[in-house]
Amino acid sequence: MKKSDIQGFLKKESEIDRESHVIFEYIFETLLDPLEAAAHLCQETSTAQWKRPGVEEDFRPQYAAKVISLDVLDKSSISAFYTNAEGVSSYLRVKVRIAHPYHNFGTAIPNLLTVAMGEGAFFSHGITAIKLIDIEFPSAYLADFQGPAFGVGGLRKILNVHDRPMFFGVVKPNVGLDPESFTKLAYESWLGGLDVAKDDEMLADPDYSPFKRRVELVGRARKKAEEKTGEPKAFIANITGEVDDLLRLHDIAVENDVNMVMVNVLAIGLSAVRMLRKNASVPIVAHFDCIAPMTMHPWFGVGSKVMTKLQRLAGCDAIIMPGFGERMKTPDDEVLDNVSECTKPLSNILSSLPVPGGSDWAGSLPSMYEKIKNIDFAMVPGRGVFGHPAGPRAGAMSLRQAWEAIKGGISLEDHSIDHPELLAALKTF
Amino acid sequence: MKKSDIQGFLKKESEIDRESHVIFEYIFETLLDPLEAAAHLCQETSTAQWKRPGVEEDFRPQYAAKVISLDVLDKSSISAFYTNAEGVSSYLRVKVRIAHPYHNFGTAIPNLLTVAMGEGAFFSHGITAIKLIDIEFPSAYLADFQGPAFGVGGLRKILNVHDRPMFFGVVKPNVGLDPESFTKLAYESWLGGLDVAKDDEMLADPDYSPFKRRVELVGRARKKAEEKTGEPKAFIANITGEVDDLLRLHDIAVENDVNMVMVNVLAIGLSAVRMLRKNASVPIVAHFDCIAPMTMHPWFGVGSKVMTKLQRLAGCDAIIMPGFGERMKTPDDEVLDNVSECTKPLSNILSSLPVPGGSDWAGSLPSMYEKIKNIDFAMVPGRGVFGHPAGPRAGAMSLRQAWEAIKGGISLEDHSIDHPELLAALKTF
Repeated sequence: MKKSDIQGFLKKESEIDRESHVIFEYIFETLLDPLEAAAHLCQETSTAQWKRPGVEEDFRPQYAAKVISLDVLDKSSISAFYTNAEGVSSYLRVKVRIAHPYHNFGTAIPNLLTVAMGEGAFFSHGITAIKLIDIEFPSAYLADFQGPAFGVGGLRKILNVHDRPMFFGVVKPNVGLDPESFTKLAYESWLGGLDVAKDDEMLADPDYSPFKRRVELVGRARKKAEEKTGEPKAFIANITGEVDDLLRLHDIAVENDVNMVMVNVLAIGLSAVRMLRKNASVPIVAHFDCIAPMTMHPWFGVGSKVMTKLQRLAGCDAIIMPGFGERMKTPDDEVLDNVSECTKPLSNILSSLPVPGGSDWAGSLPSMYEKIKNIDFAMVPGRGVFGHPAGPRAGAMSLRQAWEAIKGGISLEDHSIDHPELLAALKTF
Repeated sequence: MKKSDIQGFLKKESEIDRESHVIFEYIFETLLDPLEAAAHLCQETSTAQWKRPGVEEDFRPQYAAKVISLDVLDKSSISAFYTNAEGVSSYLRVKVRIAHPYHNFGTAIPNLLTVAMGEGAFFSHGITAIKLIDIEFPSAYLADFQGPAFGVGGLRKILNVHDRPMFFGVVKPNVGLDPESFTKLAYESWLGGLDVAKDDEMLADPDYSPFKRRVELVGRARKKAEEKTGEPKAFIANITGEVDDLLRLHDIAVENDVNMVMVNVLAIGLSAVRMLRKNASVPIVAHFDCIAPMTMHPWFGVGSKVMTKLQRLAGCDAIIMPGFGERMKTPDDEVLDNVSECTKPLSNILSSLPVPGGSDWAGSLPSMYEKIKNIDFAMVPGRGVFGHPAGPRAGAMSLRQAWEAIKGGISLEDHSIDHPELLAALKTF
């Protein structure tokens, strides 16, 4: 790229009309002059060829993406893919903010993704590895999105839970278990104090547990549990399936008194979630399957924060995400970033309920609450409820007891002295 | 995991009923005993909790995924994510084949993806990084898939091209160009010998080039070019947009004599492609946007071969993929693997046309043909046609001239002596 060409892809941040631009933030590694590499990135994601041969014209002023800031972060002695170019012992690592006039791509999610993480971004000249770490949207752009229909407030109203985190639980075992036994486990967990029982993300419509039969039984049990406990209860049916089958599955669930649905977001695609949002009559819960292959590498792919924000825009009322603890391979500050993406102000868009998940149980509630620092979250144990030695009712009780301890300002150990379910949990998990 | 529990996730390959299992092949890195790590992987992707507390039962024999082979490949002194665990200087790298009874998840693509690359696979205990590198499907599983409606044979019939590769071209410039000028460029390229002109993957339905207006003009020009040249011509309209808008865009294209449609596969989601396939009346062309963030890292994510296979199953008649050459950051053998995934026998599924793309022009045709070793592919230049100094007609002519040279067994240089379009291409690109 000629030096004069680079200038066509640069602009001062103060000169950008924020309402007409989406800002993409990337980190990348390069062997080129970083500004030249960033200009290539702008070129590849917008006006790759900005004129016709033989015609005096330049589409860049109006249509090119522009570098608005660039910071050199550090050097790395090894490339993100191990394979250093011959003789190269150091890669510059750079953070860049790019303002893109969104009239180029519009507000359909697939066209946004194409620009943000498509060929242009990932095959840009001179950039050996790249990660999209954030997207900032102006309110004019967000106005086109529905976002969650219920949000945290709506979920609280449905569950009548206003003064504590919500307690979700994944019925386990599930793979191989018949619907009758499955329903019994869910019912027991509700009686013990779970607000929301749910399908596992892998349980869809197999022969051993046909979707229709499962939601029939579990919907009925949910109503029974509400009568018995006097508390609203929810079941989340996993309607993950082919895109042209989602609404049918949603309708079967709702007709059978199931009051929430779950989709594995990247498995069906973000745009399919947005379609579901336009047609669903109950809250939509998102599961994080298939996101990690894009997000886990620190210097390559797409930041999990970006995916959380997009799930919120697409209309997910609750977002199950990799939570705290070693098993979930996600640093605490990344979990907290994702929690914050769910609930922080975002123009006209309601908040989503953050549900950090992974190997939780009564004993992980105190540190979870301490880290999140407010009650607008849900925990979603599996084994921590359904693997409790005294069964799921006791498992659910142990969660509520843990919360009582926290509110009472005493330790779980002390509280467990006269709460055998909590005591058993402390001994088991 | 107890030693006795590991056994529940192992089986000899010869004891597996191939028609009832899908086989997932992964490479991963671990600090554990590799067999234990592989057993965890099976557990997490199938019967995570295989019994109810207090009930004597074991779902593993019928429902667990099983390790059927394991090879230790090598050791790496650095983890795929750089961040070695404290004091660790070596990770084992392992290849494993896992047989999964597919009655667990069925033949809906999102449920397959959930198992293959979901939470279970990417958050499995003791596995510090993992890559899904292949999936093998039995014919009973494939029988549920439609695959491409046209395939390579169908595309050849439509284009009446039987004895050479097909010549596609991306109209450039596109971002910022009005539909009238765009159409003129496409028309010129057809007259010069291009079989197929196409929208850029970033060009959808912007104000400066409304989809409907563009396909009206370009559909009409396509018919005119057919009359003028006596050859069938195709235009590929990019219908990438929200999932619930795909069929409307498809219909607008087809009503306006546009005879192929393109989708950015992972931007809309594989399942949406399958839905489109059931409803489309013209060939579906896939573009690789948003795949690279999952596939580029050698030891993490998902193999590009897997994504190619899934695109074929979903029903893509042509698959544009990262091609040869440094710019596309893809080793030649990986490109060739993907080419082969498009065309190799796959039960009842028709072949897809492989279209390796990226900075091609007349001069890259000989080596492309030499590497692929047969004519069942298309090339898809952008600038190589539309950036030709004498315009797109000359650019398209230079491709056909390059093919004449190859068939005549002479060098492009020699052939260019009395073919000025080829000569100009050789001088420019």
